[in-house]
Amino acid sequence: MQRLGIVDLGSGTARLVVYAYVPGKHFRLIDEIRESVRLGEGLATQKRLSPKAMQRALSALKLYADFAKATGLDQLKIFATSASRDAENSAEFMQAVQQLGLDVQVLSGSDEARYGVLAAANSFGFSEAWVMDLGGGSAQLSRMQARRYQSGQAYPLGAVRLTELFLRSDPPKKGEVEDLERFVRHEMKAVLGQMRQEPLPLVAMGGTVRNLAKLAQRKKRYPLDLLHGYFLEQAELEAIVADLLTRRTAERRTLEGLQADRADIIVAGGVVYRTVLREAGLSGLWVSGQGVREGAFYQEFLPPPHLLSDVRSFFVRNLFAHYPQEQGHTARVRHFSRLLFRHLQPLHGYGSAEERLLDEAALLHDIGMSVGYYDHHKHGEYLIMNSALPGLSHREQVLLGLLVRYHRKGEPKAGTYKVLLEEGDSKRLLRLATLLRIAEYLERSRAGRVEGLEVTIDPKQVRLTLLAQEEPWVEIAETSKQAKLFKQAFGRELQVAWSKG
Amino acid sequence: MQRLGIVDLGSGTARLVVYAYVPGKHFRLIDEIRESVRLGEGLATQKRLSPKAMQRALSALKLYADFAKATGLDQLKIFATSASRDAENSAEFMQAVQQLGLDVQVLSGSDEARYGVLAAANSFGFSEAWVMDLGGGSAQLSRMQARRYQSGQAYPLGAVRLTELFLRSDPPKKGEVEDLERFVRHEMKAVLGQMRQEPLPLVAMGGTVRNLAKLAQRKKRYPLDLLHGYFLEQAELEAIVADLLTRRTAERRTLEGLQADRADIIVAGGVVYRTVLREAGLSGLWVSGQGVREGAFYQEFLPPPHLLSDVRSFFVRNLFAHYPQEQGHTARVRHFSRLLFRHLQPLHGYGSAEERLLDEAALLHDIGMSVGYYDHHKHGEYLIMNSALPGLSHREQVLLGLLVRYHRKGEPKAGTYKVLLEEGDSKRLLRLATLLRIAEYLERSRAGRVEGLEVTIDPKQVRLTLLAQEEPWVEIAETSKQAKLFKQAFGRELQVAWSKG
Repeated sequence: MQRLGIVDLGSGTARLVVYAYVPGKHFRLIDEIRESVRLGEGLATQKRLSPKAMQRALSALKLYADFAKATGLDQLKIFATSASRDAENSAEFMQAVQQLGLDVQVLSGSDEARYGVLAAANSFGFSEAWVMDLGGGSAQLSRMQARRYQSGQAYPLGAVRLTELFLRSDPPKKGEVEDLERFVRHEMKAVLGQMRQEPLPLVAMGGTVRNLAKLAQRKKRYPLDLLHGYFLEQAELEAIVADLLTRRTAERRTLEGLQADRADIIVAGGVVYRTVLREAGLSGLWVSGQGVREGAFYQEFLPPPHLLSDVRSFFVRNLFAHYPQEQGHTARVRHFSRLLFRHLQPLHGYGSAEERLLDEAALLHDIGMSVGYYDHHKHGEYLIMNSALPGLSHREQVLLGLLVRYHRKGEPKAGTYKVLLEEGDSKRLLRLATLLRIAEYLERSRAGRVEGLEVTIDPKQVRLTLLAQEEPWVEIAETSKQAKLFKQAFGRELQVAWSKG
Repeated sequence: MQRLGIVDLGSGTARLVVYAYVPGKHFRLIDEIRESVRLGEGLATQKRLSPKAMQRALSALKLYADFAKATGLDQLKIFATSASRDAENSAEFMQAVQQLGLDVQVLSGSDEARYGVLAAANSFGFSEAWVMDLGGGSAQLSRMQARRYQSGQAYPLGAVRLTELFLRSDPPKKGEVEDLERFVRHEMKAVLGQMRQEPLPLVAMGGTVRNLAKLAQRKKRYPLDLLHGYFLEQAELEAIVADLLTRRTAERRTLEGLQADRADIIVAGGVVYRTVLREAGLSGLWVSGQGVREGAFYQEFLPPPHLLSDVRSFFVRNLFAHYPQEQGHTARVRHFSRLLFRHLQPLHGYGSAEERLLDEAALLHDIGMSVGYYDHHKHGEYLIMNSALPGLSHREQVLLGLLVRYHRKGEPKAGTYKVLLEEGDSKRLLRLATLLRIAEYLERSRAGRVEGLEVTIDPKQVRLTLLAQEEPWVEIAETSKQAKLFKQAFGRELQVAWSKG
């Protein structure tokens, strides 16, 4: 395992993230230190970094360097964004940074945009999209084509900057907000026109949109505690922004779901997104939990062109890799569940989407054992529901978690997650959970006693013939116990027999 | 890590459990295969093991042996209990077992009792107790003195046996139940008299009591999903047994919380416990999740006399050992929280119980990182609330989980766990969480930048002076942010300053 620290010195926030990884194989975020340094404070009006702001940024960088040394990171990459590139005195700041013995890369607007697109390409299933990253100093908007950065630009629309330029009253006055909106429309005129022409999914990243999404989720008591992959509808965003506009900063600071040190700048950021959705005519945006830092990470983690070949499959395997377990048992449960799925195709009529989900559930069904053997089905559900699994929609993630939850016992039901499911999903859950559970019990001894399986469908029953050298007594008994569930799921009796094959 | 399989061939259930362990250091249960073999079926009336019952037991043993071989266990210990020792044809059965190439140890009644006491001594804080283990064929009742087995006996009061002898109707008739009760009183007359004389805690183990406790917990929506350490009150047990007595087996089979294959025998077992509590005049019993199998495990795991020197401390460290993390950071957070606790003693007045709890929370505060960095405080709470932590009461475990939950942010509150807390615990939680959080933020960089701490209590404020070579900017900023919480907890302002020391 290697450990890489990435420092992102933004105009609002400075952040160190640490990844532990095996190149190309798997990774996880293992630490984060975030400080609201506001390096861009006053920059919009003074054009210069203030001595105080520089001091805060230098202290943060010093801290990160100390941290990297104390914890023995293999590598520390530091980059800075718009405040550091735009200020008249940025050379002075860079000199001070160098005196700390640190090597900082100042990203250009298009570097930032490229990293953002790399993050989006590696954490969503879209091939074509618009990617927007709204920071403290600037906002980047890019076009992703065939998963590559095609074009993009940085706009002077960062949340710190716009707050200083436009929203001077607390709460902001109507005229201030209108001026801000006019500015946004003017700056982005060309790209907003293109977006209207090409209404592709909009992937949005950065702290502003994460906080807006969190507020929206709180409001509707969203059952998953996951931001990445959340679709923030235009109507939700409109309601959130309208609400934020009526409150003073002090009041916003106490809102649950909003980071207190963003209470002032969240409004300007919200107005930018609102304007973009309105002008581009989009019904909402996709929230990304990954951004420039992850883009920079993928550049180290993956060989050029730094793209995961299959996002969903990577993150499912990435989760699996955190929880080592018996490979043999897992492989056999996958094998049996696939076999059952295919043989029973005439009864369920499902296609590749369901087959894939079932296979992922079979792969992950035992990860909860790392918490504890007893109730490991519940622990597995917890781990899945609480993990970022880019590439899966929240609905798919919920189905996956529920399949793992019901792989051993209980009557499959969606509970509080029901709101995320579609029509037919209750039946889908019941049927797939039944197949997974039978596969699990065909492997009850976890030792490969059942070597093969024959499936016969009769008008009133389904017969499973377990091929094994010796009578797999426990497997027969345990599988037979699922007859009631099977009947519920497929409307037929379940018969289980043994053959020497 | 070594892996040891232990097979317990009881009169009702056969079970293989597998432990992974480092001798004397830490262990965890990693697998279990349980089958209701009912080896003792018919034994009460026929005095012999039936061919069918022997066949089931042999199949189960064969399965466990296959499993041990296929998964490469280092060692497999097999023992059998009352059915195997009491049957007239047990020699015949043992011969069949030997033909499988297996080495089975038939435990005497007092062996069983000794193992039970060993499990109780290593999973409860009691020095003196009664220990009862109710199985399918027999029940053991022992006196534990100074954590050692002092005396004990096996009684012919197993749940399978008694069901066959007395409860022939479904549901049982009043007269049948009275006959059963009379039999229990008669068989246990002497020991029940002793228990009345010495009203020590009664620790109860085995599947029967676990199921009874689970039913009681379901009934009152107990907020923790933990059986070990649960105190089952007499009134609860009376209500559960009364309810079970009115239902038919088929109906009991569908009760949530009750293992379906115990639906018939649970009633007899419940009546035995009810009779014991009534006759011994006890207000309830302590449910043990550990039993004979764990006793046998401790014999391998620990050198003679096979006793953990401190049960609570062992299991807290055992949990910690599953989730490796930065030792340095953890050690420093423990150090600072201890220091704060002691310096602020005049303000909180707490003693060693609180100091210990705070220290345990400091040790475990980051275990949730193994699930994911974000929300690791919530994951840590989940892991603690869902782990067996013998030696802590459920109240203490809840406080521990909540301290970990609030070690970074949020206003400490008990939520659904409130019913398990005592008067003063809300304040206790608030104060200890505040100390832990300050300790955590004194170590915000996780790199030991703050080398020492001075604490001064003034009438209106508490001053923390952080000793460090260079200004620990982030630590000062982050610790200062806790001033509001500190005021709430201790009624004083919090001042944070830096000194080169």
